[in-house]
Amino acid sequence: MSSVTPLKNDVLLRALMRQPVPYTPVWLMRQAGRYLPEYNATRARAGSFMGLAQSPDYAAEVTLQPLERFDLDAAILFSDILTVPDAMGLGLSFAQGEGPRFAHPLRTEQDVARLAVPDMSRLQYVFDAVKVIRQQLDGRVPLIGFAGSPFTVACYMVEGKGSDDYRLIKSMLYARPDLLHRILDINAQTTATYLNAQIDAGAQAVMIFDSWGGVLADGLFQQFSLTYTKRVVDALKRDREGRAVPVIVFTKGGGQWLESIATCGCDAVGLDWTVDLAAARRRVGDSVALQGNLDPMALFGGEPALRAEARRVMDAFGPVGQGGHVFNLGHGISQFTPPEAVGVLVDEVHTYSRNLHA
Amino acid sequence: MSSVTPLKNDVLLRALMRQPVPYTPVWLMRQAGRYLPEYNATRARAGSFMGLAQSPDYAAEVTLQPLERFDLDAAILFSDILTVPDAMGLGLSFAQGEGPRFAHPLRTEQDVARLAVPDMSRLQYVFDAVKVIRQQLDGRVPLIGFAGSPFTVACYMVEGKGSDDYRLIKSMLYARPDLLHRILDINAQTTATYLNAQIDAGAQAVMIFDSWGGVLADGLFQQFSLTYTKRVVDALKRDREGRAVPVIVFTKGGGQWLESIATCGCDAVGLDWTVDLAAARRRVGDSVALQGNLDPMALFGGEPALRAEARRVMDAFGPVGQGGHVFNLGHGISQFTPPEAVGVLVDEVHTYSRNLHA
Repeated sequence: MSSVTPLKNDVLLRALMRQPVPYTPVWLMRQAGRYLPEYNATRARAGSFMGLAQSPDYAAEVTLQPLERFDLDAAILFSDILTVPDAMGLGLSFAQGEGPRFAHPLRTEQDVARLAVPDMSRLQYVFDAVKVIRQQLDGRVPLIGFAGSPFTVACYMVEGKGSDDYRLIKSMLYARPDLLHRILDINAQTTATYLNAQIDAGAQAVMIFDSWGGVLADGLFQQFSLTYTKRVVDALKRDREGRAVPVIVFTKGGGQWLESIATCGCDAVGLDWTVDLAAARRRVGDSVALQGNLDPMALFGGEPALRAEARRVMDAFGPVGQGGHVFNLGHGISQFTPPEAVGVLVDEVHTYSRNLHA
Repeated sequence: MSSVTPLKNDVLLRALMRQPVPYTPVWLMRQAGRYLPEYNATRARAGSFMGLAQSPDYAAEVTLQPLERFDLDAAILFSDILTVPDAMGLGLSFAQGEGPRFAHPLRTEQDVARLAVPDMSRLQYVFDAVKVIRQQLDGRVPLIGFAGSPFTVACYMVEGKGSDDYRLIKSMLYARPDLLHRILDINAQTTATYLNAQIDAGAQAVMIFDSWGGVLADGLFQQFSLTYTKRVVDALKRDREGRAVPVIVFTKGGGQWLESIATCGCDAVGLDWTVDLAAARRRVGDSVALQGNLDPMALFGGEPALRAEARRVMDAFGPVGQGGHVFNLGHGISQFTPPEAVGVLVDEVHTYSRNLHA
């Protein structure tokens, strides 16, 4: 069983727990994705995005692809935050060239009343993927599991697809907050159970993606997003295989709420590129690690600019001491990214940070 | 000439200058727009969006429409931030059901080299509209002129249309910052001249919309957006008809940079709904007025929720004293808004704030 293989590179886990590290670990959100030709080849063989996500073998294959090319310090489970509402019976599909769509979005009081925590057996393919990936990783780097935040997942459940104004979920929030609270409550319970099952299967850290919490008004973000994220964090198993399972919370556009997010019980807060890491660190001290926050578009600037921007992020965080920095982008990597830019970035982070840490 | 008509309602101008007011003035970004059936009727007669914007009579007609329905404290010129690059020869069009597009976006060094400050005669229709609107307003409320920020306009000029990742302009920013600086320099000169001509024609306040500055990384926002906005502000004529012409700067997603924006020389800073007005006021004191910041989606919540949310915004700002608050949305009003909700909102702002100010 994979859990007996000792971890050969635990720099990520140590940085997340604010322990001393020899260099700044780096991984990239969506690092297994469409910018890699080998990913597209596997996806073509799988036939569809869901065919890829629901096959443990394919999911393992694409999870490991970026590690073959780049000296990354973590693997992240290949999956999607919408597997959860799909398991709830909302009918997820991905039309060619478009984003996700649900056949049965939550629009009425009846829709919401029918919603329930799904049987985790419907997500067994995810836990199986975690097990296969751990075996194939063989202790090379830690594996990060993940889920969407209750609010972010609710956005898709109510809107039925991506949105640019969140009109339907916000109409519900303002007009019928009781309905939205019920959805969020069920999402929080489900997400906690789901992440714990990922941890049981072998995930060595977990991340909660609050991709859309940042569209909420101040005050309402705390009530409708952060409260439920905290419920998930509170319910998580925090150790496995004799070491801590760190929890990362990332709210895109949440820089203004950093202090509140940092007290939700997580070990690390993800930040997008609009946040100055120096100021962020002053605001939360070493109470949490910080993950981020290069603009994904910096990967389009050519090598000298990319290296300079990466150094700017590391310099902003400053001396590491006991406060951990995990280098990442401030959002998922673009499908148009030239893969060689990722190699340059990883090299710069590792090389430059060794001097910074020395 | 319109300039001799005394202003009957100067509450907006006084609030923007942090002078005592009897109630909180309110206007809404995009208040003359598609949520109003009479706007759609006029647009249909004009044949197209540009037909509407380029006709001083039509532009005046739609500018005044929301004032006929609602007790708003300001009119804002009906126009578009993209009239400026259109005058530069980039070839603006609006395809049916889609956003703006430029036939000649700036992609190459040659494209950028050819760019120049346009002759203002090409924007005469805008200044004519300002004159007609001032005549028709007859001093009822002040007229706000506006322009896009140099960076926001540059986004459209380089991308050629709306974008969700700003990949082309950011590639230029990272790889060829010299080219982007040249565009921004020309945009800043043009925008200052353009806004001054609006002031000459009769605009009594002006607003700079930095709709996309918030997509920039910390550090780069200051270099590539705020610096050029400040250049525009520095070059503006600040009084006319014996009173100050206040300048409002609004960076969507710019809450984290409030302190820097507040020192750009503007009189008021617009804020989106993610910002807590109480915290914002603590951060900048009474150095500038604050404009905002109701979530436009609160207009979909029904009357009790809408009134409660409007009060929440006013309570957050707190006692007005010498520090002005201009009530507005945190972004343009949605085309799907029920018009009667605007009436409710204006009533709540006026009624509730009279007690708050008393």
